Amino acid sequence: MTYCVALKLNAGLVFASDSRTNAGVDQIACFKKMRSFVNADDRVIVILSSGNLSITQNAINLLEQHGRHAERRNIWNAETMFDVAQLLGESLREVRKHDSVFLAQSNVDSGANFIVGGQIKGEDMRLFMVYAEGNFIEAGEETPFFQIGETKYGKPIIDRVITPETPLSDAVKCVLVSFDSTMRSNLSVGLPIDLACYTASSLQLGFQQHITQDDPYFSQISRRWSDGLKGVFASLPNPEWLTDIDINSDSSE
Amino acid sequence: MTYCVALKLNAGLVFASDSRTNAGVDQIACFKKMRSFVNADDRVIVILSSGNLSITQNAINLLEQHGRHAERRNIWNAETMFDVAQLLGESLREVRKHDSVFLAQSNVDSGANFIVGGQIKGEDMRLFMVYAEGNFIEAGEETPFFQIGETKYGKPIIDRVITPETPLSDAVKCVLVSFDSTMRSNLSVGLPIDLACYTASSLQLGFQQHITQDDPYFSQISRRWSDGLKGVFASLPNPEWLTDIDINSDSSE
Repeated sequence: MTYCVALKLNAGLVFASDSRTNAGVDQIACFKKMRSFVNADDRVIVILSSGNLSITQNAINLLEQHGRHAERRNIWNAETMFDVAQLLGESLREVRKHDSVFLAQSNVDSGANFIVGGQIKGEDMRLFMVYAEGNFIEAGEETPFFQIGETKYGKPIIDRVITPETPLSDAVKCVLVSFDSTMRSNLSVGLPIDLACYTASSLQLGFQQHITQDDPYFSQISRRWSDGLKGVFASLPNPEWLTDIDINSDSSE
Repeated sequence: MTYCVALKLNAGLVFASDSRTNAGVDQIACFKKMRSFVNADDRVIVILSSGNLSITQNAINLLEQHGRHAERRNIWNAETMFDVAQLLGESLREVRKHDSVFLAQSNVDSGANFIVGGQIKGEDMRLFMVYAEGNFIEAGEETPFFQIGETKYGKPIIDRVITPETPLSDAVKCVLVSFDSTMRSNLSVGLPIDLACYTASSLQLGFQQHITQDDPYFSQISRRWSDGLKGVFASLPNPEWLTDIDINSDSSE
């Protein structure tokens, strides 16, 4: 399983992915389910992927390979992030057309999803989600984030905290809490977490962090969040419609 | 959509169901996705249902109808909760055998799930989950709860709080917080919530509560939980690997 999330805030973009399955190593960036295409001062593009690993890898590799041919529209000369999302969707369609019949013969699902976001000089930051069919949608003011993979356990905290005004530091914390909730409820999502942050209009990829089991900050967040939740929970009042008898029966246990 | 949860604690059982879809009114109890069969001092049985409404209603109605024939094994003379779970599974299979072919012709899913728990004189409280195929599993020490329907958004708080030792009052609060998280993230789960509580060995159904939009306690829990979470979140430290520049860029937004 996979969990990936990306936020589009006024302050910038935050991307995070788990890495419990092996997605192999690529030559452009050091992330497993996260791949970045950076040409500083011109464009920063980050892609998160979930689904069939051969499909997602091949689609991104194809996208990268097409990028070596300057005569065609590619990820390095696309004028907008809209074009980049379209190129990614086309690569995905090409790979699925090539492989899905064979996968289907072994009942293997060739489904795959991407989140792709970033900024190209001349336009604002943008964030897209590409569906398995290659079509895609863009994040707006009302929905400033996308999730793919095992999305539900980690959604409530994002729903509560994230607005376009959220600062990057809070957004990073929120994403880590979201991963913590997901990993507690679904063992197939696990550390390390790959995290990348992009500050609006910088046209540079900001910090990247590979958060492993030993990361003291993540351990601290995880422990303090858990203790804090328990504290808030303990402070909630008892329902008045729980009679004295009910409550007494509790405390005698 | 539906969300139902039931907890099996040392102190007793807690059952809760939402009621956004209309499950009709029955003649035994006043709950929509919750139906109780009570013969005080002999047995208390509560059933929660999710899935195709005609299937779940018919299965429970069949179970109830079979209960009028004392010559056969039925819900009123079953000696154990294991037998009750089996009777419910058999009713479900009977209804699906009767209807599912016709539903399939219109591409309607005849899937349905139940949680059934309670106590019959002579044995301890027990809690079961009945799958769409009519087979079932029992809750144990390690998994003291079952959820059906839209289960994921509300699972993290249960994972964090509930152990067999949790008192009933805390369990009720936890269930309400779990519903609050679910309703925030999935609009198809909604108030009112039906809640029922059973104190171990009482052989009486304890309090039952129908929590509507106007319920002041639920509003209070919802608001205080939300505020509390935000408070805990705000108290989490910033990651040290967020450089000064990153943080400054935040605060300038």
